Amino acid sequence: MTDDPLVIAGTALGSRLVMGTGGAPSLLALEGALVASGTELTTVAMRRVARPRPGGDGASGDTSVWAMLERLGIRALPNTAGCFSARDAVLTARLAREACGTDWVKLEVIADDVTLLPDPLGLVEAADALVRDGFVVLPYTNDDPILARRLEDVGCAAVMPLGAPIGSGLGILNPRNIEAIATASRVPVVLDAGIGTASDAAVAMELGCDAVLLATAVTRAADPVRMARAMRLAVEAGYQAARAGRIPRRERAVASSSPDGRIAAGALPGNLDLAL
Amino acid sequence: MTDDPLVIAGTALGSRLVMGTGGAPSLLALEGALVASGTELTTVAMRRVARPRPGGDGASGDTSVWAMLERLGIRALPNTAGCFSARDAVLTARLAREACGTDWVKLEVIADDVTLLPDPLGLVEAADALVRDGFVVLPYTNDDPILARRLEDVGCAAVMPLGAPIGSGLGILNPRNIEAIATASRVPVVLDAGIGTASDAAVAMELGCDAVLLATAVTRAADPVRMARAMRLAVEAGYQAARAGRIPRRERAVASSSPDGRIAAGALPGNLDLAL
Amino acid sequence: MTDDPLVIAGTALGSRLVMGTGGAPSLLALEGALVASGTELTTVAMRRVARPRPGGDGASGDTSVWAMLERLGIRALPNTAGCFSARDAVLTARLAREACGTDWVKLEVIADDVTLLPDPLGLVEAADALVRDGFVVLPYTNDDPILARRLEDVGCAAVMPLGAPIGSGLGILNPRNIEAIATASRVPVVLDAGIGTASDAAVAMELGCDAVLLATAVTRAADPVRMARAMRLAVEAGYQAARAGRIPRRERAVASSSPDGRIAAGALPGNLDLAL
Amino acid sequence: MTDDPLVIAGTALGSRLVMGTGGAPSLLALEGALVASGTELTTVAMRRVARPRPGGDGASGDTSVWAMLERLGIRALPNTAGCFSARDAVLTARLAREACGTDWVKLEVIADDVTLLPDPLGLVEAADALVRDGFVVLPYTNDDPILARRLEDVGCAAVMPLGAPIGSGLGILNPRNIEAIATASRVPVVLDAGIGTASDAAVAMELGCDAVLLATAVTRAADPVRMARAMRLAVEAGYQAARAGRIPRRERAVASSSPDGRIAAGALPGNLDLAL
Repeated sequence: MTDDPLVIAGTALGSRLVMGTGGAPSLLALEGALVASGTELTTVAMRRVARPRPGGDGASGDTSVWAMLERLGIRALPNTAGCFSARDAVLTARLAREACGTDWVKLEVIADDVTLLPDPLGLVEAADALVRDGFVVLPYTNDDPILARRLEDVGCAAVMPLGAPIGSGLGILNPRNIEAIATASRVPVVLDAGIGTASDAAVAMELGCDAVLLATAVTRAADPVRMARAMRLAVEAGYQAARAGRIPRRERAVASSSPDGRIAAGALPGNLDLAL
Repeated sequence: MTDDPLVIAGTALGSRLVMGTGGAPSLLALEGALVASGTELTTVAMRRVARPRPGGDGASGDTSVWAMLERLGIRALPNTAGCFSARDAVLTARLAREACGTDWVKLEVIADDVTLLPDPLGLVEAADALVRDGFVVLPYTNDDPILARRLEDVGCAAVMPLGAPIGSGLGILNPRNIEAIATASRVPVVLDAGIGTASDAAVAMELGCDAVLLATAVTRAADPVRMARAMRLAVEAGYQAARAGRIPRRERAVASSSPDGRIAAGALPGNLDLAL
Repeated sequence: MTDDPLVIAGTALGSRLVMGTGGAPSLLALEGALVASGTELTTVAMRRVARPRPGGDGASGDTSVWAMLERLGIRALPNTAGCFSARDAVLTARLAREACGTDWVKLEVIADDVTLLPDPLGLVEAADALVRDGFVVLPYTNDDPILARRLEDVGCAAVMPLGAPIGSGLGILNPRNIEAIATASRVPVVLDAGIGTASDAAVAMELGCDAVLLATAVTRAADPVRMARAMRLAVEAGYQAARAGRIPRRERAVASSSPDGRIAAGALPGNLDLAL
Repeated sequence: MTDDPLVIAGTALGSRLVMGTGGAPSLLALEGALVASGTELTTVAMRRVARPRPGGDGASGDTSVWAMLERLGIRALPNTAGCFSARDAVLTARLAREACGTDWVKLEVIADDVTLLPDPLGLVEAADALVRDGFVVLPYTNDDPILARRLEDVGCAAVMPLGAPIGSGLGILNPRNIEAIATASRVPVVLDAGIGTASDAAVAMELGCDAVLLATAVTRAADPVRMARAMRLAVEAGYQAARAGRIPRRERAVASSSPDGRIAAGALPGNLDLAL
């Protein structure tokens, strides 16, 4: 879609929109949204279930999610959602590697189940352990440029700062921090959490992010397929705008046309013509 | 491009991006940007010139702009840029009608050449006069919902509120006003002036505008063709997002996945599976 | 309170906080708030009542408001609240002049009772008529710098732009417009409507306003007297800050202390001392 | 000044404005500003100097700063400015304790000398070590609510989140984070860094902070004494406003006066009266 692919840990992805599956009303709705989004990478949460479900019903997630992603050619990115300590996150990542056959992991170490904010100390600890264990680690982090640098320093393959709390739909609360992270980072920066609508995704890309990760902004929209399409367009729009060299912000008005030859400026003779 | 066309005064337009020609470095660059933008309606300024230019060089605008628009199948929308009174604007509109063979006019009555802000009183006066004279009037106005209503009341075919001063690139300074205008208006609302980059155009559409008009954000970008493409995508993204029913903004985090069956939640037996 | 008085139409006022009486739960609460605010100018609404109330109960406003203002030495500023046309506003102003014995009037011409926004055309018309009739006119206007200039041109003694819709408590939605009005105006600029809390009032003054007018932010606060005190302090804080020459906004950090002689910078000998 | 004192580690302070000395043009200017600010707690940086200066000149900081603070009855709060590691910060704190005779320390562990942002990991490490060593630790931290909680957990006596980068004067970039920290914290929250003008300080208090720390906003203002006075008033205004129970923000206008009895509403008989 974009001019050059997103490359994470040597793997090229044709889309800069990373999707999550959380919040989808049904497997069918999810499939439609994923296809409309054009995503090539989608996070999935691991859960224990009482027993394998033969058919699965889609409403609560099951092996058919896996099958669907395979069928659509979308790479699955297991996450460690629901982990409140580095230890739990490392354990979950290892189980996911076994279950899913991928060493990529979206690392979440959540501080508590009210704010759902990342625990910065546990996050660095877990990232460090997983990198040493051979994982390709994509950590969900706060928007602190220094923490992003630490995560990069321990060997993460990307950094994924939040724009706003998970599920809030508030967009990017501190654009300067996101821009600082994107400017300084040598690994891809994926804006993760907070996206509410299409313009938020465009802003993320304009600030220099390499990709956008979102779930409920699409899955819980009134029309998930249409919103997925909107997000796909917005990510591409922001990507192009970031590379097109925008005009500077100015506090004063600037005329677009020259005032020369104004019709109304008096008695100037001359033929009427179009001006650039 | 979008699902349903933009209809102004009974005329359907396939694109919701209205372009201006001001600020283009050359006729060639302008043509590339117009094509990339997908626009079907483009404003042009009328000027007096010493004599008709046989060939024209494109750098200062000339009959070749007209020819180019014709060749590209883009409707020309003459404006009254540079008019500082209702009288001058009405005169300019009439001359443009003669010269261009169209009764559509982008009405500008500018208060002064520093702020380039619309003169609200002169604007209503000129709009009223031109509507009575058979024009299809598209007025460039400030973001006051009441003035927008007055312009609609006198018979304007659209209202075109500013997001920020002309050429400032500051985006939409008072989104609530733009949303109020879009919500109340029975004629199309075109966000005019202030757009700096793609996300600004997406925001305009998400606020309920029917189209976006911009010039220098594209013509003075480092890469006008690429920015034109970005704007085209952004307008479409915002249009789709506005119709997809976005998630509400919430002050608190909301988990996207159910916490049931967390791997790390203890000694629960069970098989590992993917969760929605 | 402030270093130099606010002067409107030749009259010096010792406080730059103009109060309104609307929304007060009782006459007693209003009195406490007015005293705490330090105001010397307070708007009052004129109403027809079935008959003069001998004692008055304070809950619905009555002659005792008038008596109270007189007792407190606060100048009454009759307004034309509830007027939806220039004609009604002019009539109301004239009745108020008779009833109150003052030719000062806060001019409101409201477009409708949902938005409560000013009607720009009716406002200029009424202001012009009242100035010609000898009134000292203080018009409640939108935040359009051009309309403010028109009101000044017809002879208004001040201009009173809104920060946000009446009663919204949203603060100042378009600070650039307020600053532009304050910078250009030769008559006092009073921020009117939209103030929600103390910092909003400070911002208004920092943007260059000469005074702040507010009512429900105080009268409907949980503790009106305390909020009145907060507003008094905030107006004074903003006034002083505007004159103290603030530091510029910078996109990059700037150290406050010199790094010379850092203790931790190595084996430098020397005595320990305090640094500026 | 405020109704109840700020209490840090059992010590009551009569002012909620904490000053820094960095950036002062001269000792005399600093003294004037400190007095005008009403502060009772002021941060000082420790430096090595070649030899004790007998008299001191004030321009570069010296023992006379110490003497001045003693004379003014202002408590000195040594900081660890210029420390880029936990180890350096701990060392500096210990030297300051010896030199200044106070176990209070403003803990700074700075990540680098470009961003001047706190290093979250080093900060927690140093805070933990200093608390164990008997210090009263007031850490300068980023605006992450989770990091603030960790600092509180290790026993800090206050948490001091930044509003924006040091010296930027950008105000509070992410008010939600500051509010979340203030709401959750059981120790005093002092907004530190980013303040540019008076309204920023008022906002900090309205968001629930217990105090505001600033230096260059005053010391580098054109008129430091006047800005110090503005800050004192603004902190008090914000403190009172936070306790006065502000009106809610509303998206729609709300009339302050009842429309009953509008003069202009027709031919209603009745006497003219003032309305609340």
